[in-house]
Amino acid sequence: MKLKDIGEFGFIERIRPDCIIRPEHIVKAIGDDAAVFKTESDRCMLLTTDMLVERVHFIRKATSPFNLGRKSMAVNLSDIAAMGGNASDAFVNIAVPDTVDLDFLEEVYRGIKHSAAEFAINILGGDTTGSRKDLVINVAVIGYVAADEVLLRSGAKIGDVLFSTGYLGNSRAGLHLLQNASEGDGFEELVQAHCLPRPHLNEGRFLATQPQVHAAIDVSDGLSSDLGHIIRESAAGARIYADRLPISDQLKTFCSRFGYDPIQYALAGGEDYTLLCTVDPRHAEAIAADFRQQFGRPLFELGEITDSGRIEWVDAAGGIHPIEPTGWNHFKA
Amino acid sequence: MKLKDIGEFGFIERIRPDCIIRPEHIVKAIGDDAAVFKTESDRCMLLTTDMLVERVHFIRKATSPFNLGRKSMAVNLSDIAAMGGNASDAFVNIAVPDTVDLDFLEEVYRGIKHSAAEFAINILGGDTTGSRKDLVINVAVIGYVAADEVLLRSGAKIGDVLFSTGYLGNSRAGLHLLQNASEGDGFEELVQAHCLPRPHLNEGRFLATQPQVHAAIDVSDGLSSDLGHIIRESAAGARIYADRLPISDQLKTFCSRFGYDPIQYALAGGEDYTLLCTVDPRHAEAIAADFRQQFGRPLFELGEITDSGRIEWVDAAGGIHPIEPTGWNHFKA
Repeated sequence: MKLKDIGEFGFIERIRPDCIIRPEHIVKAIGDDAAVFKTESDRCMLLTTDMLVERVHFIRKATSPFNLGRKSMAVNLSDIAAMGGNASDAFVNIAVPDTVDLDFLEEVYRGIKHSAAEFAINILGGDTTGSRKDLVINVAVIGYVAADEVLLRSGAKIGDVLFSTGYLGNSRAGLHLLQNASEGDGFEELVQAHCLPRPHLNEGRFLATQPQVHAAIDVSDGLSSDLGHIIRESAAGARIYADRLPISDQLKTFCSRFGYDPIQYALAGGEDYTLLCTVDPRHAEAIAADFRQQFGRPLFELGEITDSGRIEWVDAAGGIHPIEPTGWNHFKA
Repeated sequence: MKLKDIGEFGFIERIRPDCIIRPEHIVKAIGDDAAVFKTESDRCMLLTTDMLVERVHFIRKATSPFNLGRKSMAVNLSDIAAMGGNASDAFVNIAVPDTVDLDFLEEVYRGIKHSAAEFAINILGGDTTGSRKDLVINVAVIGYVAADEVLLRSGAKIGDVLFSTGYLGNSRAGLHLLQNASEGDGFEELVQAHCLPRPHLNEGRFLATQPQVHAAIDVSDGLSSDLGHIIRESAAGARIYADRLPISDQLKTFCSRFGYDPIQYALAGGEDYTLLCTVDPRHAEAIAADFRQQFGRPLFELGEITDSGRIEWVDAAGGIHPIEPTGWNHFKA
């Protein structure tokens, strides 16, 4: 069955169940021209919106539609996480070509709703329309955070310790494996990191409640690119140490087997959706210990914020190399 | 020049000027993972988001990019208008194929900013990404309205008088003219209605401040389709009178010249972006008079809300015909 067989409104009726998980602040959700919320004056509202385009961000035939739905939520939830926020409400716009079956679409929405339920997020509406060739999914997510807890890119201070809430480079290696299916099994963690990134919302809330965490960003374009945003917005520099980069055992095995450099994967990989944060050095050790206690995983220390105005990396022998933000450029791929 | 030549961040720097028009409630706009707002507890927030897809909603070669930018704003602003809101902030996501020049893109944003400035709306960010074939523009707009002024689709009461804030059918006739360029000049009003729809934000604010206005919706899919939403959400019916439909002189001339039925254009045309509203019959005349005084144009009376559970139209001889909501279905075009 195709979307044209049931029309936009028939489709909306199908996806309407299970969309409202937090009714208390909702005046009107799906079924009017716009969603209506009540607001509270002691909170800041956050809004983020990202688009996934077929043949740019995903290959339809190579993607599970359920995972595609989850990923379309995750890339937005990761942005709310990077601000220290609680995600609250999502809006899903989708442009559907004639070649997409309704079963596929419903699986996409099942993935979207799975993510929404996992983090107690309402789905409040959106726009369903046609497309001639490519499937396009645009999600917008609203979140809230106390005004004194917002994590900005611009708060980094010289001397801050730089951390990542998870491994770097796994997602790019997973993409490589998907594109070269003959290269073997045993790398489920890498493939999973690419297909089903986990938004670090809980980690973001943890960081937001620590006044000594000064700045944060999520790693979407790659460590060097995203760290570049922090140093630019904070008028600072950064130094990272190659031997401290959080590289998973599977990524090491993958690079060793196929002759790649794990440091390049960690520096420029992108789509890891971990959080980078900068922390007052006097409290860095205590915060890392609290993080490990709460999440059962390390907060990985990568380096520090400097006054150099650029990013440098230090090799295992102590050599210092300036690097350009060479993260993902969608337009040069 | 192409987007790939300057990259996403080079492009963001180019579009960043003139984006913040109302700074007072903004904590952080472009340049972080999400926008951050202060909120006030005595207002409701509205959010709407719509996507325009090349070859479905517009033909790139036949469209002025400036008008495309304005239209991508207008379709969203019209939704805020239909809720009685003041539009406040916009987010623009755009997926750009390699075949789009930067000049074209900058004209799109000039159109977006023109609309934003016209209604004092901030542009707070968005996502710029690649596309393989079609240009896709997704706009989200936030607005605010006092809690006791929200205009819902569900408020219509039996006996209410049904009004439109402007002519119906012009936009569809304009589209026909654009697709059949040989059919002659002299229909600028129709072409303009299609290419450059005017969001009825001021009209929506006027209606929202009248407690006797019970329900509203904007005409995006067509009168019969959009009125169908009102009667469904209000558990009512509606009757419209063919000889009262607001048909412009140019639409009459167009239909007479080419042998079309202006009533069908007015009933099923779509994309007019006027507002339909339902009004307590005891106050309908006074509100229509106030509207004319304020806007120098009539508030067109179309018919009334009934208990029939369906839409009926009454022909010039008094015959009553049930109609189905036959507005635009994007998937059957």
